[in-house]
Amino acid sequence: MVERITSPANPTLKRIRALHEKKYRRSENRFLAEGLRIVAEAVDAGVVPETLVFAEEARAHPLVERLISVTEAAGGQAIATDHANLHKLSGKDNPQSVVGVFRQRALALDRLDRTAAPLWIVAQAVKDPGNLGTMLRTGDAVGAGGLILLDDGCDPFSVEAVRASMGAIFTQTVVQADGAAFFAWLRSGPGQLIGASLTGPSDFRAAAYRAPVFAMMGSEQAGLPAAYEAQCDVLVRLPMRGKADSLNVAVATGVLLYEILRQVEGGSPV
Amino acid sequence: MVERITSPANPTLKRIRALHEKKYRRSENRFLAEGLRIVAEAVDAGVVPETLVFAEEARAHPLVERLISVTEAAGGQAIATDHANLHKLSGKDNPQSVVGVFRQRALALDRLDRTAAPLWIVAQAVKDPGNLGTMLRTGDAVGAGGLILLDDGCDPFSVEAVRASMGAIFTQTVVQADGAAFFAWLRSGPGQLIGASLTGPSDFRAAAYRAPVFAMMGSEQAGLPAAYEAQCDVLVRLPMRGKADSLNVAVATGVLLYEILRQVEGGSPV
Repeated sequence: MVERITSPANPTLKRIRALHEKKYRRSENRFLAEGLRIVAEAVDAGVVPETLVFAEEARAHPLVERLISVTEAAGGQAIATDHANLHKLSGKDNPQSVVGVFRQRALALDRLDRTAAPLWIVAQAVKDPGNLGTMLRTGDAVGAGGLILLDDGCDPFSVEAVRASMGAIFTQTVVQADGAAFFAWLRSGPGQLIGASLTGPSDFRAAAYRAPVFAMMGSEQAGLPAAYEAQCDVLVRLPMRGKADSLNVAVATGVLLYEILRQVEGGSPV
Repeated sequence: MVERITSPANPTLKRIRALHEKKYRRSENRFLAEGLRIVAEAVDAGVVPETLVFAEEARAHPLVERLISVTEAAGGQAIATDHANLHKLSGKDNPQSVVGVFRQRALALDRLDRTAAPLWIVAQAVKDPGNLGTMLRTGDAVGAGGLILLDDGCDPFSVEAVRASMGAIFTQTVVQADGAAFFAWLRSGPGQLIGASLTGPSDFRAAAYRAPVFAMMGSEQAGLPAAYEAQCDVLVRLPMRGKADSLNVAVATGVLLYEILRQVEGGSPV
């Protein structure tokens, strides 16, 4: 049954609002997805919110009604509130009519089935949540299995990362690990480790990729640490024809992954 | 001679602060670049700020001293202030020790030399300044000539776009036009118009590109209008292997441009 809550001081709304902060996301093991489109994408991917908060004014939308039904059928709670409260939940820069609370589903490395997909993204200390979310979205587009986050990067469950992922946070497996644990796990089974590097010896289109491929990208500021580059089977570079020798990390990921995808689907290096 | 200004009410500082708003950027025909790195990239590209504001505390940095000299040698004004004022200029989210004021150098379409580069980006109604700036940065990386902005998109001279461009706003030519004027200009000379479309008939790697190539990308929400797609010589699609059929527009631009670059440098379609 839909509960109606309009007091901003309501403890449930306060707890949901607190999920904008990483420490509460971590202690509650929950996160927020804001907006009708992304919550609907979650449901389409089989991930139902534990709590769905919606603006009463938006209930006329058939999709909102459907999200309420799906949430309640799965034992979750649907909460009707007013626009003012929703704006408080979703931030004034980007007010939404629907907010979903989801359980974080990060996987431990030793439970990851590397053969489930031909390619995987490894992000080392990526700092910008927009970049990380965009990498998740790109992973979905190329049929990657998921994103392995190494070391101290941004939180993939932040509102900004979830928004940039455009729903891919619900379809991509997310793993967090430190570098040493990842390298030990990687070498315990099949897998080709590709590192993206400005000074890599191979043009990314001349290298030969063999599934499962792990494409490792370094942080925005520093790229991959030398010790991580040393772990790679192949270091690849993207050609640079401009004045700045730089690409956004999410763009570089997309360019590299589309070449890996082409090859794991049967294309040859060129 | 360096002027020292510490009053936030100073009219010069107020005018600089106003450049965070599009209407003042337009009426003054100026824009802001924030941060030592990006102002230094401008100077390296031969573009000197008209006004350089720096934190007195940062003057010990040799690069700051150099930027002061270069600015003054070009007839510009260097202003020393305190951190509090600089934080007001550069926004509290991202405080910087240096801010440069630059003249907008957007070019009229009829003054554009299309043969100056083998490829060009055309962005139709792209709304997010981070995406637009990232597209500029990618354009620099692949040796594009510049970015042609069609219709009502975001401002390439906003602080966010300039930041995401990582200096490419100073190396890429920027043109603003409406669609009809652009198509008329394009057909008045050589040029292949490529449109990126989810339903394009050609895989982007199977299409043959001939310089000068104009790669046209639509808005984040809607893609290219049908009438614009109809103008294209080739409509290309990026393969989608995921659940969401979507890519960030700046990522899609990067993937497509790297394939165009490969071909205009002598590679064949695959």
